[in-house]
Amino acid sequence: MKKSDNSIRIMDEYAIGVDLGGTKISIALVNKMGRVEKYLKIPTCAEQGQEKTIARIKQGIGQIIKEKDFKISEIIGIGIGVPGPMDYRKGVVHCAPNLPGWKEVPLADIIREEFQIPVQIENDANAAAWGEKIFGAARGIEEMVCLTLGTGIGGGLILGGKIYHGKNNVAGEVGHITVNKDGPLCNCGKEGCLEAYSSAAGIKNRVHQRIAELKSGSKGYSLEYNFEDMGLARIFELARQGNVIVKDIVEEAIEYLGIAIAILVNILNPEIIIMVGGITNEGDKLLSPLKEIVFQRAMSSHLADLKIIFGALREYAGTIGAAALLWDTHHF
Amino acid sequence: MKKSDNSIRIMDEYAIGVDLGGTKISIALVNKMGRVEKYLKIPTCAEQGQEKTIARIKQGIGQIIKEKDFKISEIIGIGIGVPGPMDYRKGVVHCAPNLPGWKEVPLADIIREEFQIPVQIENDANAAAWGEKIFGAARGIEEMVCLTLGTGIGGGLILGGKIYHGKNNVAGEVGHITVNKDGPLCNCGKEGCLEAYSSAAGIKNRVHQRIAELKSGSKGYSLEYNFEDMGLARIFELARQGNVIVKDIVEEAIEYLGIAIAILVNILNPEIIIMVGGITNEGDKLLSPLKEIVFQRAMSSHLADLKIIFGALREYAGTIGAAALLWDTHHF
Repeated sequence: MKKSDNSIRIMDEYAIGVDLGGTKISIALVNKMGRVEKYLKIPTCAEQGQEKTIARIKQGIGQIIKEKDFKISEIIGIGIGVPGPMDYRKGVVHCAPNLPGWKEVPLADIIREEFQIPVQIENDANAAAWGEKIFGAARGIEEMVCLTLGTGIGGGLILGGKIYHGKNNVAGEVGHITVNKDGPLCNCGKEGCLEAYSSAAGIKNRVHQRIAELKSGSKGYSLEYNFEDMGLARIFELARQGNVIVKDIVEEAIEYLGIAIAILVNILNPEIIIMVGGITNEGDKLLSPLKEIVFQRAMSSHLADLKIIFGALREYAGTIGAAALLWDTHHF
Repeated sequence: MKKSDNSIRIMDEYAIGVDLGGTKISIALVNKMGRVEKYLKIPTCAEQGQEKTIARIKQGIGQIIKEKDFKISEIIGIGIGVPGPMDYRKGVVHCAPNLPGWKEVPLADIIREEFQIPVQIENDANAAAWGEKIFGAARGIEEMVCLTLGTGIGGGLILGGKIYHGKNNVAGEVGHITVNKDGPLCNCGKEGCLEAYSSAAGIKNRVHQRIAELKSGSKGYSLEYNFEDMGLARIFELARQGNVIVKDIVEEAIEYLGIAIAILVNILNPEIIIMVGGITNEGDKLLSPLKEIVFQRAMSSHLADLKIIFGALREYAGTIGAAALLWDTHHF
């Protein structure tokens, strides 16, 4: 729970944070105050296979070091957030649903061999949580849950001031908790997962399915808008305007997200719930109804000091958090 | 995560564990191997107020020490499991729903003053979890959830080998997570809590309500059994026989309990789920369908090493666990 003594030794150093995504790799050079000094976003090219993607990571890191004209000794190490189950102790990525062919990849060793500096890997949602904890909206907080709300829904737990991994390093899988046993089919193959209701993909799926139903119906429904290519922001806007196609889908998305947060609050009694990801662009229009549901559903004993907020690091949470893995003892 | 060095020093000592319940106080003298050397169960007399109940605790402890002809110096201390929110650091019971009048009671100080030995308090579900961890079915396990299934449903979390308390010491409130947003009213005033479906009180409530509905119905339904005074074991038995009054109520009780366990598994990725309390008398007839639901609802990555079992300490988990608080560093 105590900050590592490293924090003095590395006063003038930098770390590199990598956020490995299914479509993009983000790489940041981060200073010891958490400021992003250099930022790079390149395509993952996941379809070209594991080796190509790893080559791109190396190349991106090399480019940043070169551009900043750094000595490698000034960089304390490289942290990498990965989109799937991994072993942070061994530095091995077990697999990654959006990275075809990745299986038991010793990513930390591979990158370490290239640059000869320390490398740590972490689950991407945990990295984002850690970023907010060390440099963002949860500074000084010991008990917190970070929800990554994007195409899917992930979660990172900070308990007792550390990243909580669980037995197999897969703790925090909030997206696939059952919120309605008779709910819609999720991409994971189960029914009624939070992700099927409240993720960007889940909301869009439900809208598309409703339109398909209406189109195939006997009424010959004609649509006012082109829902098929509609972004999340527009869907939310139409819902607030009372559009009958999307209104209850968005309301349920918010309601089940609120219920899931209340579940986390009752079980973990955190001080802060932090949300990061695209959907948080909705701002108070999302936050207000969401809080109402959490306060309705969680126990009053758990609500006294609870804060429910959006992250402070925005799209940089993952890379900053990955870099920050090098600056503190982050695990149990 | 490392055992305290005390474990050597106290090789030949004993601790007293107290489980303070709404109707009964259980007190056990426990040796350093976790064996109950002496056991006492006395009425709480909660309706007579806080001072009377505390006097009964003191009296019970005194009786056990006297009967065993112990020197107080042979007892390392007293651990007390309490049925409500508390501060284990300060030894203060904030309140207790089933103990009228209890408000900010410095219970640890009061008992310490009487016996002049160390006193620790803990939430009762946490104490039961700790008992199973130190001397029961979860020995050597670092990540586990203990569910206390009785009149209500409680939970104790052992994470990283320690009791996890959360920000306000109220973590683990599994009984009041929403499992169906449109579900029946719970005693807590909210709708669709796990406890409303799967606790002994919840199941009985639902049966009674169904009977009331049937009796008031126009059909003039005549009942084969006296459901009003029926115990849980008999209700489960009739459900298995296909009795239409109780069948789906019991099936839903098991289904929602399974869903709640799957939620805990996805969020915390524990190695063991341990259940203690009356309902576990159902044995395999409960455990088999329950496991099926958990395996259907939790993520496969979380199920690899998961064990779902009943506690080994039976009704002694709470007192043994309370005593064991004295023998190890149990909190974060």
